[in-house]
Amino acid sequence: MRAGSTTYDAPALRRYLREHIPIAAAMDIDVRAADMHSVTLGAPLAPNINVHETAFGGSVAALAMLAAWSLLHLRLQAAGIANRLVIQRSTIDYGKPIAGEFTARATLAEPGNWESFMTFLQRRGKARIAVHATLEYEGHIAARFAGEFVALAAAAPSSFSEATHVR
Amino acid sequence: MRAGSTTYDAPALRRYLREHIPIAAAMDIDVRAADMHSVTLGAPLAPNINVHETAFGGSVAALAMLAAWSLLHLRLQAAGIANRLVIQRSTIDYGKPIAGEFTARATLAEPGNWESFMTFLQRRGKARIAVHATLEYEGHIAARFAGEFVALAAAAPSSFSEATHVR
Repeated sequence: MRAGSTTYDAPALRRYLREHIPIAAAMDIDVRAADMHSVTLGAPLAPNINVHETAFGGSVAALAMLAAWSLLHLRLQAAGIANRLVIQRSTIDYGKPIAGEFTARATLAEPGNWESFMTFLQRRGKARIAVHATLEYEGHIAARFAGEFVALAAAAPSSFSEATHVR
Repeated sequence: MRAGSTTYDAPALRRYLREHIPIAAAMDIDVRAADMHSVTLGAPLAPNINVHETAFGGSVAALAMLAAWSLLHLRLQAAGIANRLVIQRSTIDYGKPIAGEFTARATLAEPGNWESFMTFLQRRGKARIAVHATLEYEGHIAARFAGEFVALAAAAPSSFSEATHVR
């Protein structure tokens, strides 16, 4: 799939997330990679630490949600569809404690569902899709995230340029 | 249960969370109420906003986790047990969008399990317990959180005074 090799503008995504989601800036998130297949975000430990000197579960969940949201946002943006993306349900299984910089890599739970998702969104103005994310620390999986999102064709910011006009 | 009427030191809990969990400070969390039965935390919208001008799902999850963790931490502290509390699994169902200040109220999923939880923790140095939290916005439930925590009898900060020595 040719579009699958598309690489998105990681610095623009980083700016967008940090400008519009203050907690993303407080977490000091970074965009490691962003293409049609996956979005990988990273965060340092210091701003995301808990009382046990490991990563706060809330920060781990937030990084996964941001990676998952970004993947859908970028794919819909590439398709030229203005949308509003809302998380409906999320589950995280925490494995190992995270004692340093960590990453969240999001992918579609079932890539084969993308076409029907797009058809529903365009015909009915609303569609659901599942995204998975794996959180890694020192090259090992530290947690697994599963999220269900609802996309609504709406006037919400659908591109970085539009987004800058929102404020 | 007489102890059930115990009210904890909310300002001390607020200081503890904000001093040791930078994201809690960035979220500008507040402690609304804290007793043996429940811990209620609040957060304003501004520092927790998302691209759609509603509360970021990551902040909603984080507030619920902090309320749940605090309830267990305070109960174990009241029992004089030094412990390390780690979240193992969490699920959130997001209902309505949150367009302003919101709260998370945590309670034990099954209060009747507390005694066996304490017995396991004291005998084996490790025990699991489930906590629920409801998130409210304008008096209505906006999301529901369920978390499973593992408590480990350990040298982790178990009181505000000890905690201040950690840094």
